[in-house]
This record gives sequence, structure tokens and C-alpha cells, in this order.
Amino acid sequence: MKIALAQLNFHIGNFSQNTKKIIDYVQKASSEGAELIVFPELAVSGYPPRDFLAFDDFIQKCERSIMEIAEYSYDIAVVVGAPVKNSKPKGKRLSNAAWFLNKGSVQHIIKKTLLPTYDIFDEYRYFEPNQDFYVINYQGQNLAITICEDLWGLGDNPIYAINPMDQLIEHNPDLIINIAASPYDHQQFKTRYNILKTNAQSYNLPVIYVNHIGAQTELIFDGGSCVIDKLGKTIKQLPFFEETLGFFDTETKENPAKVIPFPDKIKSIHQALVLGIQNYFKKLGFKKAILGLSGGIDSAVTLALAVEALGAENVTSLIMPSAFSSDHSVDDAIQMCQIINAEYNIVSIEDIHNAYSDTLKPYFKELPFDIAEENIQARARAVLLMAFSNKFGHILLNTSNKSEAAVGYGTLYGDMCGGLSVIGDLYKTEVYELGRFLNEKQEVIPKNIISKPPSAELRPDQKDSDSLPDYAVLDRILFKYIEQQEDPANIIKEGFDKNLVQKTLRLVNISEHKRYQAPPVLRVSPKAFGMGRRIPIVAKYLQ
Amino acid sequence: MKIALAQLNFHIGNFSQNTKKIIDYVQKASSEGAELIVFPELAVSGYPPRDFLAFDDFIQKCERSIMEIAEYSYDIAVVVGAPVKNSKPKGKRLSNAAWFLNKGSVQHIIKKTLLPTYDIFDEYRYFEPNQDFYVINYQGQNLAITICEDLWGLGDNPIYAINPMDQLIEHNPDLIINIAASPYDHQQFKTRYNILKTNAQSYNLPVIYVNHIGAQTELIFDGGSCVIDKLGKTIKQLPFFEETLGFFDTETKENPAKVIPFPDKIKSIHQALVLGIQNYFKKLGFKKAILGLSGGIDSAVTLALAVEALGAENVTSLIMPSAFSSDHSVDDAIQMCQIINAEYNIVSIEDIHNAYSDTLKPYFKELPFDIAEENIQARARAVLLMAFSNKFGHILLNTSNKSEAAVGYGTLYGDMCGGLSVIGDLYKTEVYELGRFLNEKQEVIPKNIISKPPSAELRPDQKDSDSLPDYAVLDRILFKYIEQQEDPANIIKEGFDKNLVQKTLRLVNISEHKRYQAPPVLRVSPKAFGMGRRIPIVAKYLQ
Repeated sequence: MKIALAQLNFHIGNFSQNTKKIIDYVQKASSEGAELIVFPELAVSGYPPRDFLAFDDFIQKCERSIMEIAEYSYDIAVVVGAPVKNSKPKGKRLSNAAWFLNKGSVQHIIKKTLLPTYDIFDEYRYFEPNQDFYVINYQGQNLAITICEDLWGLGDNPIYAINPMDQLIEHNPDLIINIAASPYDHQQFKTRYNILKTNAQSYNLPVIYVNHIGAQTELIFDGGSCVIDKLGKTIKQLPFFEETLGFFDTETKENPAKVIPFPDKIKSIHQALVLGIQNYFKKLGFKKAILGLSGGIDSAVTLALAVEALGAENVTSLIMPSAFSSDHSVDDAIQMCQIINAEYNIVSIEDIHNAYSDTLKPYFKELPFDIAEENIQARARAVLLMAFSNKFGHILLNTSNKSEAAVGYGTLYGDMCGGLSVIGDLYKTEVYELGRFLNEKQEVIPKNIISKPPSAELRPDQKDSDSLPDYAVLDRILFKYIEQQEDPANIIKEGFDKNLVQKTLRLVNISEHKRYQAPPVLRVSPKAFGMGRRIPIVAKYLQ
Repeated sequence: MKIALAQLNFHIGNFSQNTKKIIDYVQKASSEGAELIVFPELAVSGYPPRDFLAFDDFIQKCERSIMEIAEYSYDIAVVVGAPVKNSKPKGKRLSNAAWFLNKGSVQHIIKKTLLPTYDIFDEYRYFEPNQDFYVINYQGQNLAITICEDLWGLGDNPIYAINPMDQLIEHNPDLIINIAASPYDHQQFKTRYNILKTNAQSYNLPVIYVNHIGAQTELIFDGGSCVIDKLGKTIKQLPFFEETLGFFDTETKENPAKVIPFPDKIKSIHQALVLGIQNYFKKLGFKKAILGLSGGIDSAVTLALAVEALGAENVTSLIMPSAFSSDHSVDDAIQMCQIINAEYNIVSIEDIHNAYSDTLKPYFKELPFDIAEENIQARARAVLLMAFSNKFGHILLNTSNKSEAAVGYGTLYGDMCGGLSVIGDLYKTEVYELGRFLNEKQEVIPKNIISKPPSAELRPDQKDSDSLPDYAVLDRILFKYIEQQEDPANIIKEGFDKNLVQKTLRLVNISEHKRYQAPPVLRVSPKAFGMGRRIPIVAKYLQ
């Protein structure tokens, strides 16, 4: 049986476009002789639809799309994800389903059993878990159709009390099909492959895996659709970060040697972020970006990514020196714009800053220069960036990194502004890594930007190291606390200075109010700030 | 048996303070002859602890608190909420538990069965549901101990497939105890009472209900702890919005006539918001608030509430006129500060605005005045407010209402700034209602502020009605879409103009990116913006 794997990019709630795309691919696959085509989880609505699922109208539109698609299933069977209403009198009102369409109608509706409700996932918010297990016989083969997490109930200490494949294996399947909405992070390739391999080996069955590609606000889907044989070998791998229609014939053996390898960490982060920017703009109907270019590494890397994603002609930088800006900052910033041939404006904040100082003088009197004055500079810059954005229709790109977002080293309504945080899931040390990577083929970021010590330049001769530990140390502590959710005592036991650990974790916890108002962050790690990390603002834990 | 109901205010993660408070109340209850004291759900950690639950250290601290409390349970039994580790090899790592302490040790651990995972609740993110049902025999009585949602699995179309009381009733209980973390909204008194009454009547058992009071960032807990007799009558009602230790003797019949009635909608909203402000400041360790006073109803109501919550001496207003401010706005604002005897400063944004205009002139040239210039004014005000906040240690109170937050009629990083949104869950028409209510005893808001037509005053002679429909109509459409999650077709069928409905819902959906960066909103309705309403930013639904 020839099976088509449709690894596609959907737009949440855009039913006409999503349905048309699905039908186009059904026809394409059919014309190439496929007998079955597999689309990702909740393809019809886009993933994650979140609380749109609460609207009957939204569910009806999903159903109508399914009926339209079914019209094209005479010569080919279609497996496609969409929600379905719960027909039982008890339980949540929907299930997350794989619809099996053939001969012009809905033949089967397979419901998801394991509902991820952790990190960025909220599926039990919407869906009732499945309790009926059966395989679908099609063209003489028994298909065990599963939905994403359904294959993840494994391990020594599984977070689910049941494992769907243990039920399905009783029905003698010939093949596992898994339709997924599994977002990218830089560790995900391996984790995902290990899960699929373990399933293939445990049940002695080949696995066909079809995932989304494309970005949905902060979530980036890398695709990575593949076929694993029953020994656990990848025998077909669709390209990462691209829309593709792949084919696999159950009768022929593909050659594992030809399989595309996983991109390494920084390379994949690079691809993910470029896709993340592109999709954010395209799906919102915008073309042009603006950002504040300080001469530091964060805004330089953001600019390079934006230019790659949107084209140099669509990216404007504002260079906004103040009295505390060093000459080299402005020079470095200009040099970068010249290298990449992108528009920049040098807009001094001097007059604006003076107007604030004069206006505030009667109240601040002779009080010493402090955080208030530092923040005025960052906020004056944000007002200018937003004025350009409002006047000319740019989206402002935020340039904060994860280290500073973690410890609150940033100005709310200042440099924390923006429609999208591009590198907010990269620690400072990773931003440098990415900067060096971007320079590998051709120097796009002037060397001096990479080599000079980081500074916010909000007061004379300021360096980040005045108030923060060395990033190499800080980032490791943060990684342990944020990604690995390690206890303070453990982190200290691993050799980090006790006071430094306590101070750092305290800073992370008291900065929650800032992150609450930060832009959505393109997620590239297993634990990004945003929907996947929910911490109370008002609390007193490690504080 | 004399039972104490401890309706208390906890601080999330503040174990030393929470534990001390619990022990104090155990001793107090014991000294008054109680044989059992009941504390709310997750009292030990505070509710909701959210992702702090991922840290072993946090769970160990909960356990240590329980052990400390147990030391005081020799003469009295204690029912208190805290998480417990899942001892089984499968499933989520924790359960949400009621710990039964007596004779100095842990006697029973009852786990929660129904895990609310909707609106602001995320319990299945953390907890494994219970599957073992039994009653606790204490002083000759069989206690059916349940945790909040465990009593909510009722109705014609329950969202849970099982109902714990149907299991517990098999064990012949004499009494239902329910420990809760049930946040306030203005419809909650009735909903909650109906649930408790239905349980009492269905199982022919009295119900003892103990809830939190106090605010946890956006969530406000009203308490409302009570005793319902087996006929469904409230025979004991603890005061709303107050810490109280109540007593109930199972041998005596209380008099239903004496029960405190539910406060009506606006009165309860008033109490909730004052408590919400107070707790936000106190638990964060702040005293002083600042806000921008425009002369309009929103900032006037916010000011009145802040003064009531924090004292007039702790609230500073900035009145920040621009060229477009009407004289009456400034006069009305000044008059209000004089009435309530609170500090104000008149800070003109003229010079700052001019500095922005001059700085931007080379780029904006002769382009017409538009949203860019409007927003500069709102943002210049925000920078001034934040400068005061940073210099003097105020928290900035946000003054946006729910109608404008819904349709995006507000400036991001401008009037949308603030640490806490006080009236962000009140539609404009409700803000007026609250304003009139606040004036009932004594006029705190000058009449002109209530009677004049609303305006943002960001361009000459601007009125809200230039770009928005009448609030009386707008608010009803918004209520149907946001609170009631009605479909557009339904709303139109109810008699609203089709174009107006479509335009309004479109505005709501395209403004998600603004609300994503808005401050936490004190929640007083069943559906507030924030954690309880999760909508994708990048989408195309009704847009």
C-alpha cells in the first residue's frame, strides 16, 4: 500500500485555507497513486486552537471541513485530525480525533486517549479521553491509528495510568499510524525518535509518523515526519521545517542510509527562529519589522534573523544613542546595517530624555540618579519604536534574551516591548553561540559586537557584570532551575556558590510580574517562558 | 461534635507564615472545645501554587508543614489541604489531598477525584485523580471528606464521567466535609450554594464547606464557608471576604433565619476589588500606589477603590493634561483628589510630546496625525507614571476596563500599563454602576465625571462613540461572546446588528496580542481576560 505523509503548515481558525490545502494534497497524493494519505493532528483547525474550541461555531466549521474533504476520498482514504463532539452524556464535550474518510464519507473516528496537560499543553482542558480501542482494516491491513501523545505513555514512571498501544496490540495491527502536533525544541528530535523507536520495537510494528510544520505564535513545529521500521530504524525521514508530501510503500524497503540526519542544536534553532518570524508575520498579514539596534549582541542576532526571515528591504533598525552610549556601539550598529544592507535611522533620545528630566525635576529634585532614570531611557526608545511601528505598519521585534528575562534585567515597557520575542528562549551564552554560527558562512555581525563585554549602557561605564554574575555561570544555574526544575539545595550541591544560587533563584521568582507582560517568546527549549511555565506573581517562595 | 471552620487567607509558598497561622487556629479551636478543625484546600501551600508544584523542594516543604501541624493534633483532629506524592508507579506525580491529622500524626490522606481543568483551573496539569473511596470514622461519625470540585460532578451533562459522592454514599457517611479553593465571581454565591444544596438533598446529608478568603494575584476568594443541613438549608454562614473561625455543633440546630444573605452583585464586586488591591500590595510588600487620573470614570473609580484599600495617604495621582485635554477633565480630576484628600500632581506632557514630535519630524515629515501621535501621548504618560513608581516605590495601578480591553481600545505600553488591573473585569457600563454605588453614601466621584460622555482625549473633541458603538449595546454583545461563549449567528439572531456583531467579534479576536501583554486583572466575572481565557494570537477566526 502506498501511503502519503502530508507534513503541512496550517493557520489556526482559517478553515477555508486549511480545507483547500488538505483537498489539494489529497488530490495530489491520489494522482500519484497513494491509497492512503495521512495529515497531522487537528490539521483542520490548526494547532493549538485553545479556547476557540469552546465555540460551537468553531466545531461546526471543523465538521463542515471534514465533510468537504470526505468528498475527495473516493479513490483514496484520508486520515486527518479534527475535534469531534462527545456523543456520551458525561465527560468533556469534545474529543481530539483522527477522522478516517473513504468512499466519500466518514468511516471511523478514532479518539485520543492520552491528553498532554503539562508545559504548553492543555488538552484535558478541552477533551474527554478515549476508552474504546480498535484497529481499522483497510486494503487488507490493520491500522492502529494513534494521536501524538498516545504513543508517549512509556518509560519507568509514565505520567499516564494506561498505555493505548497495550490495548491496540490485542487487535493484531500491521502498522502504527501516529498523527501529531509535536512542537520543536532543540532536544525534541532525539526524544521523539526514541519514543517512536521504542514503540516500533516493543510492538514489533512499523510506525508512520506525521507532524505539523510551521509556527503558531510562540510554538514552532519542525515536522520531522518519518517512517520507522519494526526494528526501530528510520527508513524514511521527511525534511525538517518544510512543507512536504512524502510517500512510503509498505511493500518496498527504503534504505536507512539515505535518511536525513537531525540538524544539530544551533543549526536547528536557527532554522526554527527564521521560520518562527516568517510565520508570525505572514499569518498576521504583516511584512515589515522594526527593532532597536543597540550595538550589542542581542539586537544584532535578532536583526540578522529578521533579515533572513523577511528580507533586508523589510527590516528597519533604529539606533538610539543616549549620553551613556559609547561611540563603538553606534559604529558597530551602523556597520552591521551596512553589511546586511538594511535600512537604519539614527534617532537621538537626548531631547526626549531632557524633556522627561525637566518635567520630573520639580518632583525628583536632587534625588540621586537611579533605576528611574535608567528606565526612562529604555522607555523613551520603546515609545520611538512604537511610533514608527504605528506610523508605518511595522511589527516591533523584541530583542531580550532568556538570561535577562529570567533575572528581570530589563525594562518593562522599555526594551521588553515588542510583538514577538525572537531570542527570548536563548540564554545569553546561546545568543553568542548563535551569533558565531550566523557569521560562519559570511560575517554578518561585526566581530566587535561579539567580542566586547555586554552592557545595557543606561549609566556611565555600565557593564552587565556590575550587577550580574558571569553569564557562563548564571546561565548554568538558570538552566538547572528553569529547564530542569532542580531544587536550590541540589544546585548548590553541584558546586555553585550558595549565595549566588539563592540570589539568582530569588531574582527569577520576583521577576514574574515582568515576564507576565512580556511578548510571546519563540520557543526553542523544552521550557520557555510563557504558556509553558506558570508561576504565581504574588507569592513568597525562595524569595 | 463541635467542628471549627477556619476560613483563612494564605500566602502562596510562604510556608512559615501559613503553618504558623494554621497552628494558631488549631490551638484556638481546641481551646474553645472543638474536636475537629477544617482548613481549606491546599491551605499549606496557598492556592493556586501552579508550577511551584514541579519542585520537590516545594513538596517537601508542604510535607514538613503537615508534620509540624500534626504535633498540635493531640486534642483535636485537623483536616487540612496539601499536595501529596503519588505512591503508585504510574500517573502524575502528585495528588491534591485533604490530610486528616490526629493524635500527633497523619491518620488519613484523602485525594481529590475531580480535577478542574477549565477557565483559570489547571489541576490535571499537576494531579492524578483519586480512585479509592472511603469514609473516616471519627468520634463515632463517618465523615465523607471531599475536595472542592468533588461535589461539582452533577447536572444533566456533567463534565466528569464519575461522581465521587455516588461512591462515598455506599460507605454510610453521616456528614459531608468539603474543603475548597473556589474563587469569587459575582455569580458564584448562587452557583456554589446550589451545588452544596443539591448534594445535601441528593445524599440526605449535612455539608460543611470551608473555603479560602483573600486574593492571589488576579484570583479573589470570598470565603463563604457554611454549613448546609440535609434538607439543603443554610444553617450557618461565615462572613464573606473576612478571615473567620466559625464553629458548628452537629448536636445543635442553628437557626437559618440568622444566616448572612449573599451580597448583591455590585456590593460584592466592591468588596472583592478592595480586598484584591489590599492583598496584592500586602503580599508583595508594597504600600503605595500611583495612577494616572484623566478626569474620566475609569481612573476615578480605580482611585476611589485604591484609597479605600490602601488609605488616601498611600495613593498618588498624576494628572497629565495634553493639548487635547478639556479643562473640565483637569478640574474634575483635581476636585476628586480634594474630596478624598489624596495627593495629586499636575504634570504636563506638552514638552515631552513636543520633544517626540521634533525628534520624529525628519521621519514622519508631513504625514497626517494618526494613531501614532495618539499613542505617543498615552505612552508619554505611562513613562512618567513608571518614573514615579521606580523613584518612590509605588505600584502603578492600571485603569483599563473590560470593554476597551476587549476591543483593543487602549494603548499598549500606554494606558495599558500597570502592575495590577483593578477594573479590567468590569464592562464600561458596570464601571458606571460601581461609580454610582461608590457615591451612594457620600459623593467621592464628582457628578460631572459620571455624567459626561466618555473620551480618550487623544485628539481634538474625541469621543469614545466616534469609533465604538454605544457601550450599552457593545457591552451586551461582548458579554454574550466572552462570558457566554455564544456563536456570532446566535448573537445576531437575538436582534443585534449583523455588521456590528461581526465588527465587534473581529476586534476582540485581533486584539489578543494586546491583552497578552496586559497586567493581571482582578477577576470578578465568570470569564475574565487572563489565565482563564486562552486564545491564540496568530489565528484567523472571525477575523
